Amino acid sequence: MTSTSTARDIARAAKAAFEASQLVDPSERNTALELLLDELEKLKTDILTANKQDLEAARVEVASGKLSESLLKRLDLSTEAKWTAMLQGVRDVAALPDPTGRVTYATRLDDGLELYRVTCPIGSLLVIFEARPEVVVNIAALAIKSGNSAILKGGKESTRTATLLAQAIRAALARTKFDADYIQTVHTRAEVSSLLEQDRYIDLVIPRGSNELVRSIQRSTQIPVMGHADGICAVYLDESADLAKAVRVAVDSKINYPAACNSAETLIVHESLLTSVWPKVAAALLDKDVKLLCCPRTLDALRQSQDTHPKLVTHVQPATDDAFTTEHLSLTLSVTALSSLSDAVKWINGHSSHHTDTIVTESAAAASAFCRGVDSAGTFVNASTRFADGFRYGFGTEVGISTGRVHARGPVGLEGLVIYKYMMRSTANGGHIVGEFGGGAGQKQFLHEKIESQAVPF
Amino acid sequence: MTSTSTARDIARAAKAAFEASQLVDPSERNTALELLLDELEKLKTDILTANKQDLEAARVEVASGKLSESLLKRLDLSTEAKWTAMLQGVRDVAALPDPTGRVTYATRLDDGLELYRVTCPIGSLLVIFEARPEVVVNIAALAIKSGNSAILKGGKESTRTATLLAQAIRAALARTKFDADYIQTVHTRAEVSSLLEQDRYIDLVIPRGSNELVRSIQRSTQIPVMGHADGICAVYLDESADLAKAVRVAVDSKINYPAACNSAETLIVHESLLTSVWPKVAAALLDKDVKLLCCPRTLDALRQSQDTHPKLVTHVQPATDDAFTTEHLSLTLSVTALSSLSDAVKWINGHSSHHTDTIVTESAAAASAFCRGVDSAGTFVNASTRFADGFRYGFGTEVGISTGRVHARGPVGLEGLVIYKYMMRSTANGGHIVGEFGGGAGQKQFLHEKIESQAVPF
Repeated sequence: MTSTSTARDIARAAKAAFEASQLVDPSERNTALELLLDELEKLKTDILTANKQDLEAARVEVASGKLSESLLKRLDLSTEAKWTAMLQGVRDVAALPDPTGRVTYATRLDDGLELYRVTCPIGSLLVIFEARPEVVVNIAALAIKSGNSAILKGGKESTRTATLLAQAIRAALARTKFDADYIQTVHTRAEVSSLLEQDRYIDLVIPRGSNELVRSIQRSTQIPVMGHADGICAVYLDESADLAKAVRVAVDSKINYPAACNSAETLIVHESLLTSVWPKVAAALLDKDVKLLCCPRTLDALRQSQDTHPKLVTHVQPATDDAFTTEHLSLTLSVTALSSLSDAVKWINGHSSHHTDTIVTESAAAASAFCRGVDSAGTFVNASTRFADGFRYGFGTEVGISTGRVHARGPVGLEGLVIYKYMMRSTANGGHIVGEFGGGAGQKQFLHEKIESQAVPF
Repeated sequence: MTSTSTARDIARAAKAAFEASQLVDPSERNTALELLLDELEKLKTDILTANKQDLEAARVEVASGKLSESLLKRLDLSTEAKWTAMLQGVRDVAALPDPTGRVTYATRLDDGLELYRVTCPIGSLLVIFEARPEVVVNIAALAIKSGNSAILKGGKESTRTATLLAQAIRAALARTKFDADYIQTVHTRAEVSSLLEQDRYIDLVIPRGSNELVRSIQRSTQIPVMGHADGICAVYLDESADLAKAVRVAVDSKINYPAACNSAETLIVHESLLTSVWPKVAAALLDKDVKLLCCPRTLDALRQSQDTHPKLVTHVQPATDDAFTTEHLSLTLSVTALSSLSDAVKWINGHSSHHTDTIVTESAAAASAFCRGVDSAGTFVNASTRFADGFRYGFGTEVGISTGRVHARGPVGLEGLVIYKYMMRSTANGGHIVGEFGGGAGQKQFLHEKIESQAVPF
């Protein structure tokens, strides 16, 4: 078989498993998650042995400089904390409310004719991610909970571990009413390339990983892709910014976890703060070892400030042209001065990645204008950009953060894995036909009376 | 300027107009629609003269066989009924509730820290459609109402009319706080090709027209596309079908408006009905001049029936291989017999275009299984497939019908033109930082208390 026909078989099996699952009672999904915990415990020794082998192979690659040291940490599943967290993740997902079967619109079109819009799974997912092997279990749990079938592709460094995790998933599914093909795993890039062509059978691609991974997938498929590109987030210190808030929000947004996509990469300072608030915010950032790439005005302000910070020479530099479109992902912050709120909004819309941006202000009008004018998934007032996160937002879990403009935006919970369908029922004699409705004499008019209902009654 | 740089300018202007519009009060959108009505009335004579010229040019093309006769009817805007309907369409859209600014999730994360998910426009739209010139006005109204900027491309046959309609739109916008570039029109295919590359500035492409148009656009852009492909809808006559309902639903689904995407193309007959219900349903369809393409069993049943219909010879033929994957869009219906509900669900999932399918049944269990098992945007019980329509569903207007699985599915009203953003506000001393939350001693826990609110209070 060629790679394409194999991919077609895998994709077709995923779709068939999804379609068959629609007649399985949704309670079976939580049963599957409980059985998954059981099968993982049964295979624990084998899984950890396989993980050791993956780690040893990776150490060789790291030693020869082919892989980075940080990968080893992500690959390692052997600590009790990591194992426990993986299992707890499955329990957390199981405990969430069912995202499907919820009625979001219901109307009576006519006596005896009811319409319900009800949430349902999307279909079959293709999820592509990188090193961490426990993501296989995490994503499988999310797919099962939301009623979607899935094909999973992890990083090649974790193949041995992932193969056994997939075996546990298969064993769990075999004890349920779901097809064993409900969750499948593939291991090669060639398989993924061919799967990206299967738009007849795969409904959504979710890449989780580097910007490069996400962009390359977007370029190579006609299947809808849900993912985020850069996280270039800004903190804007408005004319009326409170000093304590400015310091706390700027510092937390930058240093709380610099490698995260919701960390600030840019600080915008209103020009009226150049000699007052700005030097103090800069000092607080320098205290935390942040490197500042400054525009001429913010740089001058620091150099002319009376309280010269000891790190001024080592940690403060002029910003280069690309500083404001770079996702530093480290303790580096680009800084620019602007002369108005309106300029700041325009600057952010032109330079940010439309992820999350925050204003520090005491003005209600400025807060309102910023939140409406900044065209990002998250617009915050006096709060750190780091709050942009599914757990913090209260979703219980997070599929990822979307900077797209359709379907789901910002942190995406289980809701991002469902869509809806319209169910309609006639209980009238003779059923309902469109030909009876219209503007003519004796013809019926639509009622469009709201129905209060949480679930479809048939 | 090359075509690409022109397209980039157009797309960039659309995006800039959208961004600027975010600080304009939403009430200005209805003002713009009222002014649009005014400008259309002012230009009425010129518009109808231009429409006559378009029609004359088209008649030459029709006479030489380059265009079809039916295009003339779609192109013609000169009847008073059509003109009035165009203006009424604008008024109807203006009368709909604002789809933006609605809070769909609100939670208190901590004392003084509130999160709001609020509906907002998507951004800049590229809408591509075919002959009917009034669609320019229709789509402009939808874009303005939903707060999106738009670039519109109509059919080349209506260029003269569309240019004047666009002039009216521009004149109306010039009297508002919106940029004149808020709604732009382009006229050539080359411009569209270049615009489809502007994924940095254009957020959503909406093709309205033939399947061919939709597919060709999907293949040639990385911008998300919202549209529908085929409408291959099925009526399934279940074992327990009531005869009167079977006849009424099958006939209405087929003949009410055969050229529409929500018309039935396939009839599935449970085998137990072959000698009872089926011949009577067939007779009713033949009475309405429907041509039946039958599988061997449904064909035999008619040929062996005691009541031979006079049109049996002329209107009933064996189904060819492609009959069940063809969108007839005419008075032709493919018919097959199957032996169970489960087979019917599988058949529909394998052959339909996931648009709208209906079951005729007296069994509550069969209705429930059909509605859940059939993976289509609409699953109906004892109701005609023709009910799948935004107006009939109560949306007031319809952007189109989506057979996609993300963002919007089924008939799409104004809700399909909005997404949401997350606004967060801290009112605490010092603002809110993530570093204060966590599992450690003295650290804060998230509250996640539901806030009852219809609108963002800041």
